[in-house]
Amino acid sequence: MENEVAPIIPKYWETAEFPFHLIPKLGSVGFLGGIIKGHGCPGLSSTAYAMCISEVARVDASIASFCLVQSCLAMLCIAQLGSEAQKDKYLPSLSKLHKVCAYALTEPDYGSDASSLNTVARKVPGGWVLNGQKRWPGNSSFADVLVVLARNTSANQINGFIVNGGSPGLKISKIENKVSMRIVQNGNIELENVFVPEDDRLPGANSFQDLVNSLAFSRVMASWVSVGIALGVYDACWRYLGERKQFGVPLAGFQLNQEKLVRMLGNIQAMRLLGWRLCKLHSSGKMTIGQASLGKAWITKQARATVALGRELLGGNGIVTDFHVGKAFCDMETAHIRG
Amino acid sequence: MENEVAPIIPKYWETAEFPFHLIPKLGSVGFLGGIIKGHGCPGLSSTAYAMCISEVARVDASIASFCLVQSCLAMLCIAQLGSEAQKDKYLPSLSKLHKVCAYALTEPDYGSDASSLNTVARKVPGGWVLNGQKRWPGNSSFADVLVVLARNTSANQINGFIVNGGSPGLKISKIENKVSMRIVQNGNIELENVFVPEDDRLPGANSFQDLVNSLAFSRVMASWVSVGIALGVYDACWRYLGERKQFGVPLAGFQLNQEKLVRMLGNIQAMRLLGWRLCKLHSSGKMTIGQASLGKAWITKQARATVALGRELLGGNGIVTDFHVGKAFCDMETAHIRG
Amino acid sequence: MENEVAPIIPKYWETAEFPFHLIPKLGSVGFLGGIIKGHGCPGLSSTAYAMCISEVARVDASIASFCLVQSCLAMLCIAQLGSEAQKDKYLPSLSKLHKVCAYALTEPDYGSDASSLNTVARKVPGGWVLNGQKRWPGNSSFADVLVVLARNTSANQINGFIVNGGSPGLKISKIENKVSMRIVQNGNIELENVFVPEDDRLPGANSFQDLVNSLAFSRVMASWVSVGIALGVYDACWRYLGERKQFGVPLAGFQLNQEKLVRMLGNIQAMRLLGWRLCKLHSSGKMTIGQASLGKAWITKQARATVALGRELLGGNGIVTDFHVGKAFCDMETAHIRG
Amino acid sequence: MENEVAPIIPKYWETAEFPFHLIPKLGSVGFLGGIIKGHGCPGLSSTAYAMCISEVARVDASIASFCLVQSCLAMLCIAQLGSEAQKDKYLPSLSKLHKVCAYALTEPDYGSDASSLNTVARKVPGGWVLNGQKRWPGNSSFADVLVVLARNTSANQINGFIVNGGSPGLKISKIENKVSMRIVQNGNIELENVFVPEDDRLPGANSFQDLVNSLAFSRVMASWVSVGIALGVYDACWRYLGERKQFGVPLAGFQLNQEKLVRMLGNIQAMRLLGWRLCKLHSSGKMTIGQASLGKAWITKQARATVALGRELLGGNGIVTDFHVGKAFCDMETAHIRG
Repeated sequence: MENEVAPIIPKYWETAEFPFHLIPKLGSVGFLGGIIKGHGCPGLSSTAYAMCISEVARVDASIASFCLVQSCLAMLCIAQLGSEAQKDKYLPSLSKLHKVCAYALTEPDYGSDASSLNTVARKVPGGWVLNGQKRWPGNSSFADVLVVLARNTSANQINGFIVNGGSPGLKISKIENKVSMRIVQNGNIELENVFVPEDDRLPGANSFQDLVNSLAFSRVMASWVSVGIALGVYDACWRYLGERKQFGVPLAGFQLNQEKLVRMLGNIQAMRLLGWRLCKLHSSGKMTIGQASLGKAWITKQARATVALGRELLGGNGIVTDFHVGKAFCDMETAHIRG
Repeated sequence: MENEVAPIIPKYWETAEFPFHLIPKLGSVGFLGGIIKGHGCPGLSSTAYAMCISEVARVDASIASFCLVQSCLAMLCIAQLGSEAQKDKYLPSLSKLHKVCAYALTEPDYGSDASSLNTVARKVPGGWVLNGQKRWPGNSSFADVLVVLARNTSANQINGFIVNGGSPGLKISKIENKVSMRIVQNGNIELENVFVPEDDRLPGANSFQDLVNSLAFSRVMASWVSVGIALGVYDACWRYLGERKQFGVPLAGFQLNQEKLVRMLGNIQAMRLLGWRLCKLHSSGKMTIGQASLGKAWITKQARATVALGRELLGGNGIVTDFHVGKAFCDMETAHIRG
Repeated sequence: MENEVAPIIPKYWETAEFPFHLIPKLGSVGFLGGIIKGHGCPGLSSTAYAMCISEVARVDASIASFCLVQSCLAMLCIAQLGSEAQKDKYLPSLSKLHKVCAYALTEPDYGSDASSLNTVARKVPGGWVLNGQKRWPGNSSFADVLVVLARNTSANQINGFIVNGGSPGLKISKIENKVSMRIVQNGNIELENVFVPEDDRLPGANSFQDLVNSLAFSRVMASWVSVGIALGVYDACWRYLGERKQFGVPLAGFQLNQEKLVRMLGNIQAMRLLGWRLCKLHSSGKMTIGQASLGKAWITKQARATVALGRELLGGNGIVTDFHVGKAFCDMETAHIRG
Repeated sequence: MENEVAPIIPKYWETAEFPFHLIPKLGSVGFLGGIIKGHGCPGLSSTAYAMCISEVARVDASIASFCLVQSCLAMLCIAQLGSEAQKDKYLPSLSKLHKVCAYALTEPDYGSDASSLNTVARKVPGGWVLNGQKRWPGNSSFADVLVVLARNTSANQINGFIVNGGSPGLKISKIENKVSMRIVQNGNIELENVFVPEDDRLPGANSFQDLVNSLAFSRVMASWVSVGIALGVYDACWRYLGERKQFGVPLAGFQLNQEKLVRMLGNIQAMRLLGWRLCKLHSSGKMTIGQASLGKAWITKQARATVALGRELLGGNGIVTDFHVGKAFCDMETAHIRG
């Protein structure tokens, strides 16, 4: 991340493009797939995977978000709710990033109200026909594979479908004009009579409840994106304040700046411990959705406050991406989408 | 602003370009020059000019910043410290925006430590030769005229010079990769043996103390940029929360959102009153530099907190410029450059 | 206040007793009755009265609260909703503090839900019989006169009654164990068949709406209690930090302490301007209940934050009443009863 | 604590007196002495002792503070820096609370500047003569034994002495007028030619550095007092909001109140994890003084914010000690003496 991503990533942020050439290298590291066991996935502990996500986010939160969508949402959903055949077919290539995937749940009119899906799946001979709209799914504008959640009109239950990126009737346009995680390619998705063969329906996805486990885990990992952002900002501030002088003294020599660094460090240690505790609870099978939500809300709130302190510490140089902090400050807003 | 700027400005933010075609129209409104009397300037009261700046910033903070640099820094400096001939020569065209000006004080290594200028002015027959570097001056990459502050090496005092945009030895490159007020064109300036004729030295600028009055006033007006940003965000939130529904109810119907709106409104009223009080003190000639600094620090801090609340209120749509708030959130960081 | 109250008031706070001997002196100052015109009252402007309340609170918030209950709640209610005979009978002696009054609205089970009164007034020949309970009314444990709000059982409307302190059936016990404004004597009131003659019913009080005007004004004045508390804390901190040394330097010489003082001062100026604006709106008859509520909520929130900073600045000496700040810190909680 | 302390403790807070009759019972529980091994002490792990302190503070922070001074300051200092004879003589009776001890470091003019001791110890035949003043030591007004830190005038180093409560020349007056932890009996101490026999000098205390270890540990335990205060407030709020209704609905049913409860809970979990991590570092001998200080500062800051939220949640009933929260709110200020 530090050698190959950090030097080039500001220009991708500037133009809101994804550094596609990094994908094979990222895939070769071997952490994609995260906690999934078998099917070519590394089977990391929750904590180990959290460290990976956090260290990636330390350099760039968009790349971390790309990994999180791939591993913790789409792949994990297939691993938990898919058939053995589906797992064998999709997971190995996804874990190596030979293919990129997305997870399409959120809709234009319903952000957090996930239970009100308007996208519908109608049973037809040999498969299903999907209609509706999705908004925001990360990676979706160039994904090879999308996991799409839709309401089954006959059973009035939520089902999950594996949809190929180029399917007829599937239109995906990239969301433009972002001010945060500009490198993440979110999509506005339209599904117009998209046919999905029966083999690509996830047999384990029959209710919103079936999705909760992977959503909860993705919240924990999203917390670690925030931890990583905060760590990267702290690193950058520490370096900057030690090097740059004002009135003949390093900026780190001023009490006001020291107090901010100390506050940042305290926040970060607490965030890490809370994130670590969630990993431990998850590993032992005891983590509730409430714990994941509370933890994520708390961690991202602290991360946002921490990053804002860092932005101040850099003064004017905090509003350009060259010194890292400006980019991280903006990216933080995606991690802390609500207050 | 609402009709001609709001609809087109997000795409300029996206590409970090200035909407040059708006300059003539802005000039024709007649508020540039602000509180300056005569020489084609409107001679507004401090309060009236504050309202102008605030209403411009309500739609776009970069445009407000463009106006502020033109009126409150460069033009005001000429009006206060220039000769009658200089005023006659420069102010009329600047007030109509036939020409654009910039104010070059800040240097790469000294942000707030304005007393440590490294840019020097050496007396030569018929004028002065300037050498040094400046960083950040807004408008400078395309300014017709720059007011440059430099240390007079013989008298060891600070002097001010009017430098033409195309002067030999003057190199200005636009600062790239900004995350805030991307529309403002800041410059990295190099002065290498730039000759300035004696007629273009500001006779009233003989010490840092001579600059304090205009700097203090520009701080008050910068506060009003922050007020305008906060007002624009409040407007957008009010509209958005009234229109968009979640769980079947407008977002404005939820107690948590109401509390945020109320907090924002309280902050804004207090910011306006403090800003107004500074204008009154300034008009009566009683405002101290300490009052201006305290007031600006307080107002921008409140504005930042207010805008952050607004960003939360828009959820995912708060991270795109289309709904105004995302842009305003990022722009706020330039207004609140330090904590 | 500084000469006669400040030196003795800590010991009254310590024992939670009221300094009854100060009442005649307070009455002789001539500001009680506040904005009421005629009937022996001073007819001050809202702003002038706000200054009085604020300066009293600067030294002791409990005494300010005593004055506020007397003037802005009970007396104002009589002045606005009483008959000419009632005004002539009660206001002159109340404005000189020959008599003390209280205002009994709040009930044990309903704090802010003022519309749900359980205290009832039943019509009987020659007057009314009151039954019910009240909690919190300040001054009530020793008041000569209480304005009691009750639900008229026949008309199912809210009426107001002037009840004498010693009326048969009226039992008032002082609320013990307070940690804030310990000098204010709040009461638990029981009304058991308390007879009130027809002449002591306030003819103008026929609905909750009739009370709104005086409640709104009392909120504005309560804001000024908070302003006064914050001012007193700022004064004390300024003095303390200038005098006391640490590591050989006055505490005021440390950047961290300076930043807190500056933040306090900015808050206070903004609080005063917002409070002043409310007074101006009130004087011109344009103030809405919403403005009063928003203003009070904002001002008390800022005051609480300001006072907490002051508490920190005094370190260990901030937890004793001897240095003023400890007392003010605790008293602030009554002024900011909700978040 | 819940059965025997909670019901009676508000009246001691009210009168600022210590419940001496509880001492034998407290001593019989067996946790005093904490982490000290042998000499009649329980030899608990840091974490186990933290739980004890926290659970005591949950009901009353003053009692927890009493235990902390006894165990973590005075006794620990004797255990770490005393001779075997001193440990045998003092620790067994102190661990059973047959005797009460205090720790006298802080002086009137130097709060946190512990290196500038003005209290001096002069060598005389057979012992030492102490002169000077101390301010704040908890328990000191009734302690049987005081550990006094003084500057050895010949060696100009800091030494520690065990001083008996009734020694000639030792005058201790209780600090009055506290608004926080009123039950803790702090003392103003004067030492006027107090003779201490050579046997009562702590042989291991020869520099400020020698005290650092116990001071660092006491900071960790002080953090756990804050954790306990926050837990007690959360408990009380949870109960209160579930029981009390407004507008016909339990207070816990309002979104604004829920948000505060959630924020409190998140803070508390993070505080506990950070406090636990400090215990683990301490147990393994790796905790630095910097970690202890950062951790304490962070935890107490969070605790203060948490407790302030709780105070708001109780409205008017939050300003009396009867509902627990008012007392805890005030006590918190001693735990968070500086910002």
